[in-house]
Amino acid sequence: MTQDVTRYLEEHHERHVEELKDFIRIPSVSASSAHKEDMRKAARWLADRLEEAGLEHVQVLETEGHPVVYGDWLHNPGQPTALVYGHYDVQPADPVDQWETDPFEPVLKDGRLYGRGATDDKAQLYTQVKTVEAFLKTKGNLPVNVKFCVEGEEEIASPHLAPFLEAHAELLQADLIAISDGPMISEETPSICYGLRGICGLELEVQGPKSDLHSGLFGGGVANPATALVKLLASMKDEQDRILIDGFYEGVIPMDEAAHQAFREIPFDEEKTRVELNVQELAGETGYSFLERTSARPTLEINGLYGGYQGEGLKPIVPSGAGAKISCRLVDNQDPDDIYRKMERHVKAHTPAGVTVTMKQTHRGKPFYIPVHHPYIQAASVSYEEGFGKKPVYIRSGGSIPIIEVFSKVLGAPVVMLDFGLPEEGMHAPNEYFQLENFSKGTSTLSRFWVEVGQLGKQ
Amino acid sequence: MTQDVTRYLEEHHERHVEELKDFIRIPSVSASSAHKEDMRKAARWLADRLEEAGLEHVQVLETEGHPVVYGDWLHNPGQPTALVYGHYDVQPADPVDQWETDPFEPVLKDGRLYGRGATDDKAQLYTQVKTVEAFLKTKGNLPVNVKFCVEGEEEIASPHLAPFLEAHAELLQADLIAISDGPMISEETPSICYGLRGICGLELEVQGPKSDLHSGLFGGGVANPATALVKLLASMKDEQDRILIDGFYEGVIPMDEAAHQAFREIPFDEEKTRVELNVQELAGETGYSFLERTSARPTLEINGLYGGYQGEGLKPIVPSGAGAKISCRLVDNQDPDDIYRKMERHVKAHTPAGVTVTMKQTHRGKPFYIPVHHPYIQAASVSYEEGFGKKPVYIRSGGSIPIIEVFSKVLGAPVVMLDFGLPEEGMHAPNEYFQLENFSKGTSTLSRFWVEVGQLGKQ
Repeated sequence: MTQDVTRYLEEHHERHVEELKDFIRIPSVSASSAHKEDMRKAARWLADRLEEAGLEHVQVLETEGHPVVYGDWLHNPGQPTALVYGHYDVQPADPVDQWETDPFEPVLKDGRLYGRGATDDKAQLYTQVKTVEAFLKTKGNLPVNVKFCVEGEEEIASPHLAPFLEAHAELLQADLIAISDGPMISEETPSICYGLRGICGLELEVQGPKSDLHSGLFGGGVANPATALVKLLASMKDEQDRILIDGFYEGVIPMDEAAHQAFREIPFDEEKTRVELNVQELAGETGYSFLERTSARPTLEINGLYGGYQGEGLKPIVPSGAGAKISCRLVDNQDPDDIYRKMERHVKAHTPAGVTVTMKQTHRGKPFYIPVHHPYIQAASVSYEEGFGKKPVYIRSGGSIPIIEVFSKVLGAPVVMLDFGLPEEGMHAPNEYFQLENFSKGTSTLSRFWVEVGQLGKQ
Repeated sequence: MTQDVTRYLEEHHERHVEELKDFIRIPSVSASSAHKEDMRKAARWLADRLEEAGLEHVQVLETEGHPVVYGDWLHNPGQPTALVYGHYDVQPADPVDQWETDPFEPVLKDGRLYGRGATDDKAQLYTQVKTVEAFLKTKGNLPVNVKFCVEGEEEIASPHLAPFLEAHAELLQADLIAISDGPMISEETPSICYGLRGICGLELEVQGPKSDLHSGLFGGGVANPATALVKLLASMKDEQDRILIDGFYEGVIPMDEAAHQAFREIPFDEEKTRVELNVQELAGETGYSFLERTSARPTLEINGLYGGYQGEGLKPIVPSGAGAKISCRLVDNQDPDDIYRKMERHVKAHTPAGVTVTMKQTHRGKPFYIPVHHPYIQAASVSYEEGFGKKPVYIRSGGSIPIIEVFSKVLGAPVVMLDFGLPEEGMHAPNEYFQLENFSKGTSTLSRFWVEVGQLGKQ
């Protein structure tokens, strides 16, 4: 039924990859104001590709931040309407010196396409664009209606998307939301993610004396903000990696034996991961497996740390300030604003004498779950089996797409995650890549998915 | 007896200040390889000034690092020979954005000469140069013999000066060593420093996974090097700011009531210091005053801290590594190599699972003391009284000039510290300055000092 679609995708594969390379060449780093123009360029570039694919009403819609790219094809009245969400922005390339190739000059090597944003989310988003193109170019129609909504602020926590969704609720109205923006469990096993962790991101700054001081003349006489910071951060976790913020675990559903057993049944090779990451051992909260710790348990991670002199050699000073960037991943019924308040209380109670601390919340996203027995999830399962030749497993992801919860709430539609990335592809890390074979497998999966959803009709 | 010397210094004051400005304009930052040529320029500039002052055998002597500037005047046989030590290198200007003026474009404002290296050590060294110039230009001789030995690596812990001293022991042979490179106790009270803290500087790096990882997908599953670092650093001090490194306090002489009383007798205004530093309270080891903590007690200070993402916004990663720069100030019989070994043992015992730690020692200097009853110290006391119109107090300094201990050992001569700086002048900090009034007071003090030493003869 989709043979001509598949053939089209095979015949145009090389062109699609060249286009994808062009997409990656645009350094659409949303976090950095220096890349503001690149963001507009990426949005415009994507809008042009949506037009070429046969989508209509293609627009670059302004927000108070980076714009949203919209396009639709709505010629199948009565059939379900799918909203495809993705993002054209990427993480900063830092630390740039750890890249083996230029992060914004894509290189294809051993079947891997290297470049910042390759897997997160440019190639995955592009599987969605090209599947729709293949249907429209070969059949002139789709089994469903589609709307694309591609934002440019996912990597900075989508600060303007929620008001955008509310302002454009009618335009974006849909029966399901489809997202390809994450990793499967492994190369060998496709997977469907039915849950995402929430996130509470924050910055914490410790201020001490008015300027850096000579550590000989003043050392020992004033509180050192770097010492205060490490004391403060160290107070947040015990030796078993349990988080010591008062009330942090409220809302977390304790894992019973059945829950542990479900995790044990997911095929996953801890030793392979350990070797891949080049660490002597995987570590973390006592009593949980790697998969459990990275998807079903909440975390508190220091993302960045700074203070005093970081240059060549030693500069013997008492620094005037120090700071940290922290993100907590949340599960079950934890709420990011509640967690932030608890963090504030902890910091206040643990701030040593002689320094002052300021905090600000930078990220908020609730955890998200969809029941695996939903018909569209079952449709996805059948489709993965066709695309990857193997039945997918159901997993919870450790990542957060805070906007999903908002989508689901504002549009009142189920979210189906159709991920084609791999955990080892270096999302947010140097030498990010996308395994190109999964571009074809992904478009095959999506082709079948739209047929399945079309047959199921509205749910 | 030195009226003509004093008159010469007054008459040429303006020229001397202009020369000093030229000296400060040369960004002689020894820590940064980018300033290698500026270092040679500063050495050459200083050598030219020594020639102009009337010194002989002026040479820029090579070392394996930055060169040493030498010059002498030895026409007073039988009289003591003084070796004047100083340094022409300066600390890096970072954080540059906290300077109100260009660190390398000196600005004279309200009697203060602002610029990196103004007080540490360019102006203070220059009091020595100009005092000798004044004697030689007015009298054609000096009451003593002098040798200048000015190095370019004091701010990076003098890595090549010890071998240099040993190789040139005959050239540098002296009966006393005179150094102007530190602060007096306060603007109101001149002081003579009879003790310096030692130093043990080190760098500590924590390595985790091979690259930064997505904190959603891997957070909770691997040891976070930033978390490991803060745990490690936090384990080094307790809540009373006592250092928890096993055996750290061996060799520290406990302070008895008489020792505390001696400190109480030094005029010092803690409240003024607190306001100056803009902190809510002065803090530090329980049971000791600010002066005691900053000069008579050992310390462990974090000088720098880094790890993960420090840019704009948040980058939710588990960083691949983190690190810290640390310096300990040592007193009494503590030994920097012994302290380093104890730190290594502590770090090894406290390194969490899943990360590896590497350390290297960057600074070593033993504590140094000279008996206050030494005749040359008494000569200094009389001289300060003349230069500043007030009897000086005896203090221990919290700073370290590691090479002093080496000088004293290699040359077998007493060291007299003739400091003309002030604690609030921002040594190693932004907006460093030198209170210009102390240039004149300093040269007056030195003029009298050489006369006194000449009268005392060799000791």
